[in-house]
Amino acid sequence: MLGGGPASFIGPVHRIAANLDGLIELVCGCFSSDPSKSKQTGHELCLPEERIYTNYEEMIEAERNLPEEVRMDFLAIVTPNHLHYAPAAMALKAGFHVALDKPVTFSLEEARSLEEIVHQTGKRLLLTHTYSGYPLVKEARYRVQRGDLGRIRRVYVEYPQGWLSTDCAAENKQASWRVDPKRSGLAGCMGDIGTHAFHLASYITGLEVDELCAELNTFVDNRLLDDDGTVMIRYKGGARCLLSASQVCAGVENGLYIRVYGEKGGLEWRQDSPNTMMFRPVEGVAEMIRTSTPSVVSPAAAHNSRVPGGHPEGYIEAFANLYRNFALTLMADIANETPNELCLDFPNVCDGVAGMLFVQKVVESSKQNASWVKWED
Amino acid sequence: MLGGGPASFIGPVHRIAANLDGLIELVCGCFSSDPSKSKQTGHELCLPEERIYTNYEEMIEAERNLPEEVRMDFLAIVTPNHLHYAPAAMALKAGFHVALDKPVTFSLEEARSLEEIVHQTGKRLLLTHTYSGYPLVKEARYRVQRGDLGRIRRVYVEYPQGWLSTDCAAENKQASWRVDPKRSGLAGCMGDIGTHAFHLASYITGLEVDELCAELNTFVDNRLLDDDGTVMIRYKGGARCLLSASQVCAGVENGLYIRVYGEKGGLEWRQDSPNTMMFRPVEGVAEMIRTSTPSVVSPAAAHNSRVPGGHPEGYIEAFANLYRNFALTLMADIANETPNELCLDFPNVCDGVAGMLFVQKVVESSKQNASWVKWED
Amino acid sequence: MLGGGPASFIGPVHRIAANLDGLIELVCGCFSSDPSKSKQTGHELCLPEERIYTNYEEMIEAERNLPEEVRMDFLAIVTPNHLHYAPAAMALKAGFHVALDKPVTFSLEEARSLEEIVHQTGKRLLLTHTYSGYPLVKEARYRVQRGDLGRIRRVYVEYPQGWLSTDCAAENKQASWRVDPKRSGLAGCMGDIGTHAFHLASYITGLEVDELCAELNTFVDNRLLDDDGTVMIRYKGGARCLLSASQVCAGVENGLYIRVYGEKGGLEWRQDSPNTMMFRPVEGVAEMIRTSTPSVVSPAAAHNSRVPGGHPEGYIEAFANLYRNFALTLMADIANETPNELCLDFPNVCDGVAGMLFVQKVVESSKQNASWVKWED
Amino acid sequence: MLGGGPASFIGPVHRIAANLDGLIELVCGCFSSDPSKSKQTGHELCLPEERIYTNYEEMIEAERNLPEEVRMDFLAIVTPNHLHYAPAAMALKAGFHVALDKPVTFSLEEARSLEEIVHQTGKRLLLTHTYSGYPLVKEARYRVQRGDLGRIRRVYVEYPQGWLSTDCAAENKQASWRVDPKRSGLAGCMGDIGTHAFHLASYITGLEVDELCAELNTFVDNRLLDDDGTVMIRYKGGARCLLSASQVCAGVENGLYIRVYGEKGGLEWRQDSPNTMMFRPVEGVAEMIRTSTPSVVSPAAAHNSRVPGGHPEGYIEAFANLYRNFALTLMADIANETPNELCLDFPNVCDGVAGMLFVQKVVESSKQNASWVKWED
Repeated sequence: MLGGGPASFIGPVHRIAANLDGLIELVCGCFSSDPSKSKQTGHELCLPEERIYTNYEEMIEAERNLPEEVRMDFLAIVTPNHLHYAPAAMALKAGFHVALDKPVTFSLEEARSLEEIVHQTGKRLLLTHTYSGYPLVKEARYRVQRGDLGRIRRVYVEYPQGWLSTDCAAENKQASWRVDPKRSGLAGCMGDIGTHAFHLASYITGLEVDELCAELNTFVDNRLLDDDGTVMIRYKGGARCLLSASQVCAGVENGLYIRVYGEKGGLEWRQDSPNTMMFRPVEGVAEMIRTSTPSVVSPAAAHNSRVPGGHPEGYIEAFANLYRNFALTLMADIANETPNELCLDFPNVCDGVAGMLFVQKVVESSKQNASWVKWED
Repeated sequence: MLGGGPASFIGPVHRIAANLDGLIELVCGCFSSDPSKSKQTGHELCLPEERIYTNYEEMIEAERNLPEEVRMDFLAIVTPNHLHYAPAAMALKAGFHVALDKPVTFSLEEARSLEEIVHQTGKRLLLTHTYSGYPLVKEARYRVQRGDLGRIRRVYVEYPQGWLSTDCAAENKQASWRVDPKRSGLAGCMGDIGTHAFHLASYITGLEVDELCAELNTFVDNRLLDDDGTVMIRYKGGARCLLSASQVCAGVENGLYIRVYGEKGGLEWRQDSPNTMMFRPVEGVAEMIRTSTPSVVSPAAAHNSRVPGGHPEGYIEAFANLYRNFALTLMADIANETPNELCLDFPNVCDGVAGMLFVQKVVESSKQNASWVKWED
Repeated sequence: MLGGGPASFIGPVHRIAANLDGLIELVCGCFSSDPSKSKQTGHELCLPEERIYTNYEEMIEAERNLPEEVRMDFLAIVTPNHLHYAPAAMALKAGFHVALDKPVTFSLEEARSLEEIVHQTGKRLLLTHTYSGYPLVKEARYRVQRGDLGRIRRVYVEYPQGWLSTDCAAENKQASWRVDPKRSGLAGCMGDIGTHAFHLASYITGLEVDELCAELNTFVDNRLLDDDGTVMIRYKGGARCLLSASQVCAGVENGLYIRVYGEKGGLEWRQDSPNTMMFRPVEGVAEMIRTSTPSVVSPAAAHNSRVPGGHPEGYIEAFANLYRNFALTLMADIANETPNELCLDFPNVCDGVAGMLFVQKVVESSKQNASWVKWED
Repeated sequence: MLGGGPASFIGPVHRIAANLDGLIELVCGCFSSDPSKSKQTGHELCLPEERIYTNYEEMIEAERNLPEEVRMDFLAIVTPNHLHYAPAAMALKAGFHVALDKPVTFSLEEARSLEEIVHQTGKRLLLTHTYSGYPLVKEARYRVQRGDLGRIRRVYVEYPQGWLSTDCAAENKQASWRVDPKRSGLAGCMGDIGTHAFHLASYITGLEVDELCAELNTFVDNRLLDDDGTVMIRYKGGARCLLSASQVCAGVENGLYIRVYGEKGGLEWRQDSPNTMMFRPVEGVAEMIRTSTPSVVSPAAAHNSRVPGGHPEGYIEAFANLYRNFALTLMADIANETPNELCLDFPNVCDGVAGMLFVQKVVESSKQNASWVKWED
């Protein structure tokens, strides 16, 4: 693992999630740019001294020289955005698979370059868009594909948060890099959580963007990046999506919510109540679909659940689903088998490139006073 | 009453709401352009034969010639949009107050003309934007005014419905005029329900529009007006509003929902659960504010409630609040007293003009491929 | 109307509810045992001086001597429990129908006597168990009757409130008579709200009690009647009901909630969210049934709704349904027609007797340290 | 691990939960009484051949002879109830700690004997009452202890399920042993889930039972044990608890719900929405308390959360909290440190004895037609 030292939010989540199913073991790490902090975390995690590294170059180099059965199988990178590309590229070229926290890179150029490296090296890349790991999100995707909703017309996806309502960058490590263009990239809120919303909509509907029109706002004084934004998306084929993301919705925790309406019915799912999804037919009674009940029909939903109906599954399980599918795919690779579709169902470098393109187009539109910009150059 | 004959949805609602508090009595009516249908409804309502009229001209003329203590005090107009202006104008000029279903008129020009007539005649006009009649909406307005939220930054207001998901105009009277530009006006969905959302946001926040950018869509084949749309609003002073309205959200009933976030906190209210409102401070615990409990602090909320906490109040009560305040105002007028602020708290012709301006600007922006248009010409 | 003077809670609710549909007009009243208060309320309600009475005997006597088309059609009694029987009996005998707030009388003996008078005089008696007036409660009853749930096994009905958590009788008029055995009767909480819960369960399931076992508690010091209680009911045929009522559930408003489970499915309805009912089949997806949508199948539900789906209906509408059905029945009587089943669907004196028997048996069981007592003597 | 072979529900849950935090590693197991099934599961879990055992005697014997740093630290027993005592007793006596799925044993006698063995051997015993592992349950306990609710008056705890609505024992392995008195013990539903409800109430309130009155029912034909029941509990000091459990509430998943009301306020928590708890003061606004937000004040809640507010935590995390605290306690023991209170906060053998006593008293009362029985003999 690269990153995830003291005070990291997402590092421990990655570790717990990766560990949950007993398929993945943490064998080495470089947890901080500060060697003493890296050591501290490594010791806490009971790693052997010699596999706690002080920088990623050293780690990749050292690991590649270990015997195949000893060295790490993949590198998980959980650093801020500007520190994704270089270690990912180096790891891939050194023969390691890579798991990356989203967004995939700092810029679209880096993302496209990384995509090329993935294709050249034939290595796998997992991008942890957690929310597509939820069983009912997979159920939603399945039902859209099966045609339960008919042709899709209207998508609403929103991601309100409130934790950046004040100028808290000084005292909050999580905030500080997210609002810093040098570490976060072109966009703040839209890159951090707008990309999750965008990925979720793409994952469920399978629709491709034709053009978009966006407005980014910065409400907190002296903040350099957007902390709020709205995007109108025209999908190819005529469907419309309204995407909003904000980190200044005072008091809101983590309100990711998606609604998809088609000619025949609609689906509604929210991450803070992830074990319930509403299906609304054009006529007739609304159905309350629940995780792990007979109402859930897709093999993907079943494959990504662990407990019987009525026992809530949460964020860690969704996160673990990404790692589990990634690990199952790598295990199939190692066993020289073709990984099945259920295992291959994890976000990859293409999703990463799409996310970075989304950020770039949104920023471009916003700079032109919310005019329409084409998805393809 | 003008309109509200057999198969009318809103006519009976007006009658029940007006009647609820015992302050208003139905004394005459012209309920349909078809005289036999008008008679039928009049008889059902136990009106005397001679006060069931066959057209509004006849009604206004006849009523004005009755003794003051006998004739109607005001005319309620519940016809489709294109039949609002002429009877309203005639009634006002004949010395009657007017209650109008929204939107106020067919066009902005008519609205502005009616505004002038109201000012010239000194008569009162009630516009039935029902949703601002709910106690907790008044509470929300009060809390914004008191500064509980600090400076407003972000408003989300949405109004999804699903009942026009199919081409049902032929068999559904309610649908038929709403999708007909000759009866409905410039806009379909945006005029029918978008104006409710717009009014609600204006009522609660008190903010004024600077400019807006809108996209209207028509998803159902052969429909002539929009059945879906999105509006980005820039308020004066920097706050932003995202307004969406749709009538093709399959399976959704009547999902009006507003969220207002400021520097210090946020408020969330939805019409399908109207007795609960969330207040979220930037820090600390979210509060569940309920109708008619000590947590409700505003005199306006108390004035507009009828039952003790825990007993749900609904749509009819909210509607009745408009009529009740209107009636109390007229009674104060008659008694030569100055109506107090609580009674004057009903939507009027200015709200009507704002609504029509909203529709016009939205259509204008949408025609220019969602470009920004200024609110003031 | 008898009762309902200044500071009355339920008096105004009766008046609004009775008035809502325009079928009933308040023509006279005796609103308080204090003549000046009675006058005050009468004036506020615009009654003519001569029809504001100072006691019920005078009122009944005077009204009976008025011409048939002028005098009141029925007497609504909204006084505390101990003042129900005498005026009701006198009114019935004088040829008036009667509407009574629940519980029907002070004691079981009075209730049985009143039942006899009703049968002897052939007059009608409405008992305002509001909650059975909700459209979805009628839908529930219909579905049980149709067999959607199969044979009923288990009923849970609960009615928690918190407003008597402190010793507030001194400063709260509503509280003072409810906790006074001289005005309230044998039971406090169980008579006040336990009877609502009992009636609701009986109304929906149609089941008859075989025996019951109850514990009543008094938590607030110096209170003379129960403020909390639990009843285990064994219905004839083997079904079981657990009924709980409490007025010391701190902070709870009005939490009436009923769940009925049978061999084939279950229904769940709560009064604070009255427009939604869940139907859960033994296998398959839970359905969210909503007022006034196509999912609602019973004529009774449709007959007792006023607005289209998605527009919340509340407590006043439910209350008004009782009065409306009562009025429609009286109108059919007057027209010499047989009232149809939908109109006759209001709680009557038999429900009142059942309620009083319930109170008596509960108190009896509780006094015997919660031993089982038979329903029939 | 003992038990948890193919088709086990709770075995995999134990394994995932124990594994989640990386503190516990599965080193050996006997997963089924059928050696080939045991092997199969052992292989799937990548255990070395020699540590997959065919019976518990062999396992305990073999493990105890391994070097201290190799042999298992504790034995997790996840077999049906009748197979708890013997292996637990043997393991304890052989020097192993024990983790037991609840209820602790088949009978009260066994439970008391096990308690004695625990005391004699000085070994630790974890009983997996999952629900007390939830952060907000710990928060509730903390708030009760701090006095936020004042003196407790009324507890409602209910545990409805619907999965045993039909006679499914033949085709459902989970059902078959639960409804079999030879494997389940004195009670069915009341032992399986009633004990969870009882433990939850005890854990949060700290109250001790004085006497109870219970009715057990069996609704499904030919079933030998109760599938439904109600218990009225009188706590010492005057508080009352109403406990209900049912497995024939058709369509209900897993509805554990607890409400605690005191003189000053109330708390409400439900397991299907475990990240939210309502706090209702006697007067004032209800607060929505959420996992991992500043509103959560207790160190125990923080200690038992893993992700930031707004990211749902579920059943596996709650389960893992039990194992984590158990493991931290064992690690402290090994390090010769005194485990702190936060780590010692897991259900133990005393809770197990209380649960078995609860079952015995409930059955005793029910057999005496729901008469009151004293908790202490």
